[in-house]
Amino acid sequence: MKKYNTACPSGFPEFTPAQERVRQQWLAVIREVFEKNGFLPIETPLVEHEENLVAKGGNPKEIYVLKRLHDDGEEGHSGNAVRFDHTVPLALYVARHLNELAFPFRRYVIGPVMRGERAQKGRFRQFDQCDIDVVGMENLSLLNDALMPAIIIQIFEKLKIGDFVVRINNRKILLGILEIFGVQPQKYELAMKILDKREKISDEEILEELESAELTGLQAQRFLNFEISNKNNDDVLKNLREHLAFKTSKIFQEGVMELQIVIHALKAIGISESRCRIDLSIARGLDYYTGTVYETTLLDDRISGSICSGGRFDDLAEIFTGKKLPGVGISIGLTRLLAQLFEAKILQPDRSSPTEVLVIAADEKYLSHALELGTKIRAMGFATENYLEGKKLDKQFSYADKLGIPVCVVIGENEVKSGTAQVKNMKQKKQEEVKIKDLEKMLKNVLE
Amino acid sequence: MKKYNTACPSGFPEFTPAQERVRQQWLAVIREVFEKNGFLPIETPLVEHEENLVAKGGNPKEIYVLKRLHDDGEEGHSGNAVRFDHTVPLALYVARHLNELAFPFRRYVIGPVMRGERAQKGRFRQFDQCDIDVVGMENLSLLNDALMPAIIIQIFEKLKIGDFVVRINNRKILLGILEIFGVQPQKYELAMKILDKREKISDEEILEELESAELTGLQAQRFLNFEISNKNNDDVLKNLREHLAFKTSKIFQEGVMELQIVIHALKAIGISESRCRIDLSIARGLDYYTGTVYETTLLDDRISGSICSGGRFDDLAEIFTGKKLPGVGISIGLTRLLAQLFEAKILQPDRSSPTEVLVIAADEKYLSHALELGTKIRAMGFATENYLEGKKLDKQFSYADKLGIPVCVVIGENEVKSGTAQVKNMKQKKQEEVKIKDLEKMLKNVLE
Repeated sequence: MKKYNTACPSGFPEFTPAQERVRQQWLAVIREVFEKNGFLPIETPLVEHEENLVAKGGNPKEIYVLKRLHDDGEEGHSGNAVRFDHTVPLALYVARHLNELAFPFRRYVIGPVMRGERAQKGRFRQFDQCDIDVVGMENLSLLNDALMPAIIIQIFEKLKIGDFVVRINNRKILLGILEIFGVQPQKYELAMKILDKREKISDEEILEELESAELTGLQAQRFLNFEISNKNNDDVLKNLREHLAFKTSKIFQEGVMELQIVIHALKAIGISESRCRIDLSIARGLDYYTGTVYETTLLDDRISGSICSGGRFDDLAEIFTGKKLPGVGISIGLTRLLAQLFEAKILQPDRSSPTEVLVIAADEKYLSHALELGTKIRAMGFATENYLEGKKLDKQFSYADKLGIPVCVVIGENEVKSGTAQVKNMKQKKQEEVKIKDLEKMLKNVLE
Repeated sequence: MKKYNTACPSGFPEFTPAQERVRQQWLAVIREVFEKNGFLPIETPLVEHEENLVAKGGNPKEIYVLKRLHDDGEEGHSGNAVRFDHTVPLALYVARHLNELAFPFRRYVIGPVMRGERAQKGRFRQFDQCDIDVVGMENLSLLNDALMPAIIIQIFEKLKIGDFVVRINNRKILLGILEIFGVQPQKYELAMKILDKREKISDEEILEELESAELTGLQAQRFLNFEISNKNNDDVLKNLREHLAFKTSKIFQEGVMELQIVIHALKAIGISESRCRIDLSIARGLDYYTGTVYETTLLDDRISGSICSGGRFDDLAEIFTGKKLPGVGISIGLTRLLAQLFEAKILQPDRSSPTEVLVIAADEKYLSHALELGTKIRAMGFATENYLEGKKLDKQFSYADKLGIPVCVVIGENEVKSGTAQVKNMKQKKQEEVKIKDLEKMLKNVLE
């Protein structure tokens, strides 16, 4: 007999049913908070025309394209590439629906993206991103930059993931520093990308990379060590305003003013400093942000990297629309975050089944009575399932145990005759006979 | 300037935000009913090893595979094919988690699948399927076959899609008919496939096809015309039991007995005959069902085809697991159904934004007051958005109108001084000043 390799393809993960239940609960919370903040749901196709993805900075080595297994040359099947993020599809969505949309356009999207990265632990080739973005027509108020952390904080507090902090910066401040240190403008982007590796490689390695990017030793040192470390956002802003660069670099000045507006708005909406803190080392060098940038850190050594990042971009879709569309957005890397939380046992799924009540027939003869009763219990509002296989009672109970179903309702000859049912509390291993008319009250007591 | 084709790739549709809001509401209902019936959520990767999809009957001409745009020969990127349904991934999921699962394994899955079909109106290459299946170890009670229509009926009634009927049959009855008419066994499958086209092509064409499949003219006629048409399920069953074939064909007899058990169970759980009716012409010829089969029809001329189909299969994953795993399942073709309902204007989305309250500053000076107020209103439980762009009042109101936001709350100098806000009911174009402390009650009145 042929042997099949049934494992998931490398980099394409899946969860167990118990984990998936947690993922579904998280998705519901994320969706709810996005909607409570007035974001519209959209969903774009998994694929777009290849050239559109490449045009907006996709790394061709990581882009997957679709081909048919046996291509018969029929038109329209080639040239389609799988989205690698939700931002380029957003640009295309806006281009496609430009005249139907109200601006500022606030949308959320939740779904998988694919990147053909080298497979390694914690790196997936397919993973879910949960994104919100606000896109303006011509202009977009900086106050929107304050909403992004505010929304993320609502979500993570509701999910009770433990202590976390959204770290915020403005790339213009870093650019200003490079300017004032006399770095040539064409090296700015590269220097930012190198700074972005700060949490992955050592300071020595950063310095080496900066020097091989042709910054002088002194420039590299000063860039790496530029930091105004105060715990207090206001003090950081004060120090920034007093910094030499504030008078001599226009872009630095702009960055500080922008950051100040955002921090003040965060105060107005009651966000505490322990939740959103200025961190001048945040560069987001690999993305195309032009102002505010965010990274979110879970204050737990077992979870590495940013769990939610984003920023402001001057230009979303000019090449597609001919219009200036500035925006700001943030994205939760859901799959990676959940996988880490499960792995570290920070998140421990309790049960895999949504079923609250398993209805059991003590004898196969009473299966259709049990079906009827199951329908009745479901109509009371409980998630209800019938065990239909006509197995022995202990087998049926162990099925409930394996799935973590909290209550079994059993009927047999006596119960059918007397209009009762046996209610078994699976945790307390306690069984009680109740009249069918009292069943609803009884189940509410046990399940609440 | 380069011109980009920003349209969705052919066959890969997307909805407008207003339509997407409906889709999200539908998904929530479908998910809720699946869970109320005790089905576990799972989610499998979008791709599986190519040979596994081909092994389980995927049409190679319709299977998409993933390649990287610039393949550097790195391992693990090729040989991955996109799922074309949720049944083969279910088989693989069961194989991967065989020892962790409790049987019967009841799972639901909601998500996109891809088929490289010829692009045409109403045919998509990417579309969502919402599937439930119950998979047994070695055996699976026929009562599960009654649950499928029962669950689908709960969903479609909750979604208020109008009058519909789940049509049910058992393929063994059709096989028995072919047997009794003397058709050679190796022609059974083809004959079923041809019968399956019944609603798409004329009877003459069916007869022609049956004859070119080497049925005699008489066999073809009799097969096509075999029908016991009664409105009443019990009468149909009675006629089937009295049919000549019942005595002479074992498989026919089996089919009738099975159908009878399912119909009796449907009665026990209170499903009315107007919702679930025997239809002996249902063949599901293109799928690999072995017993019960379902199709669901919306009783509206504008909606064509089955909106929800499924059936029983003897063998889910024997080639992957070496075990006998019979199952029964049903699937809603969500994308196609929604697209048709929108197209026919049977479903008319009312508004695109989830926002209930838009908070507006009459003057830019009061934007941070407005932000504070917005946070307060959101904490009351209303979906709340701040308009932050500092535009004139009429521009802000027309933004609310375009999105269908029902209420605007406006604050300016007077309101900030007197601790009040203006509440504008956008439908009635009525504005009223209220004290902030009375705002919650007032908004509840307007929004409920």
